Amino acid sequence: MPLVRIVLVGPKFGGNVGAVARSMANFDIEELYLVDPCGIGDEAYRRAKHGSGVLDGAVSVNTLDEAVEGCFLVAGTSGITTKGDRNYTRIPLPAREFAQQVSGYSEKIAVVFGREDTGLFQEELNKCDLLIHIPACERYPVLNLSHAAAVIMYELFQHGNSARRPEPAERKEKEYMFSFFDDLMEAIDYPEHRRADTSVMFRRMMGRSIPTKYEYNTIMGILGDASKIIKNGKKWE
Amino acid sequence: MPLVRIVLVGPKFGGNVGAVARSMANFDIEELYLVDPCGIGDEAYRRAKHGSGVLDGAVSVNTLDEAVEGCFLVAGTSGITTKGDRNYTRIPLPAREFAQQVSGYSEKIAVVFGREDTGLFQEELNKCDLLIHIPACERYPVLNLSHAAAVIMYELFQHGNSARRPEPAERKEKEYMFSFFDDLMEAIDYPEHRRADTSVMFRRMMGRSIPTKYEYNTIMGILGDASKIIKNGKKWE
Repeated sequence: MPLVRIVLVGPKFGGNVGAVARSMANFDIEELYLVDPCGIGDEAYRRAKHGSGVLDGAVSVNTLDEAVEGCFLVAGTSGITTKGDRNYTRIPLPAREFAQQVSGYSEKIAVVFGREDTGLFQEELNKCDLLIHIPACERYPVLNLSHAAAVIMYELFQHGNSARRPEPAERKEKEYMFSFFDDLMEAIDYPEHRRADTSVMFRRMMGRSIPTKYEYNTIMGILGDASKIIKNGKKWE
Repeated sequence: MPLVRIVLVGPKFGGNVGAVARSMANFDIEELYLVDPCGIGDEAYRRAKHGSGVLDGAVSVNTLDEAVEGCFLVAGTSGITTKGDRNYTRIPLPAREFAQQVSGYSEKIAVVFGREDTGLFQEELNKCDLLIHIPACERYPVLNLSHAAAVIMYELFQHGNSARRPEPAERKEKEYMFSFFDDLMEAIDYPEHRRADTSVMFRRMMGRSIPTKYEYNTIMGILGDASKIIKNGKKWE
């Protein structure tokens, strides 16, 4: 994940700035620059929650140029996209593609968000290296400022970190488990001509579910016990 | 994209409900159910903006069961994930994988969000077929309610419509099947103190796998026969 600086241009409500700060903390982004902002007071801190450190460190400047100083790439955001490809200044990258595209960089990029009502002005958009767009419903594509920021930071974060998963069952454990399922079909005298298909069906279900080692062991225990009891008439041999 | 119902359990701030309604309009989701909600007043409508129609149509109910009535899959959300794979009731799907997994269905799914402070209670989580998780910074993974909702709806919207899936089992069929699994645990004299947890574990595995009607019927037949044979000593009564 590249180093990211969030730039809010002319935010009008401290609550929105606070909400953005919280999302920044959620997605491990520290640098917040504010261009000609509203006051940052109690409401901002109330919304920021554990992102208050981001607010404390926020840098206020007068111009967009100052805000993007030191960033190798400046990405603007726009809720409005144009149909024609004539207006190239408004042709955006979907947020996901943007995140993929920048994921290999470790240099700093600025992601710039405009005012709650009027967004970024044309001359501000023109200073951006590219535009990012969040694909949304055509009838109402304009997200709230902090929600748009959350979605884009979410995308940036996903490409930098993959989620930690619990340890999955190993291949040979799964094979045991499938054979235990087969044993159970035999034990209950399941129609022979259906066994092969049903065995594959069970494998597919488990394939989609990707059980953990613990889940496999538990299910295997239950299937195994059931077969044993049916065959031997008692639980423990 | 499946039909999506957003369910908010015990929301405390009308502003959050309004913000969720706006995001729903942004991502073309119409059904909002509220379980035991706070009052929905001016602040909610102020935040909802063009999503006010979603608020107008919101349905308030008393219990989670009522709120998910008619949904074939119930996905709970949790900001907290556990490291160990022992606590399988908390093993979640990342939001993106969830969106991929359900993208082919046209049946209705419920996405359930908990209270702003305490989230969903354990007994509410246990009613969910699967859990969704938004990968975020380990130091502060808990997003604001409306931001979490925005990210998940964004993911659902991005996946749009993909290939049609086979008909999934209905909710009440699945409940039968879970009760058959419980019967089998009883039949094999599975340790009583582990039954409740193992029952939830099985529900989670099935939730991730989203079995078809055919798969459910097949598995149900096998579990049911196994229990009957163990209890009665023969296959057909």
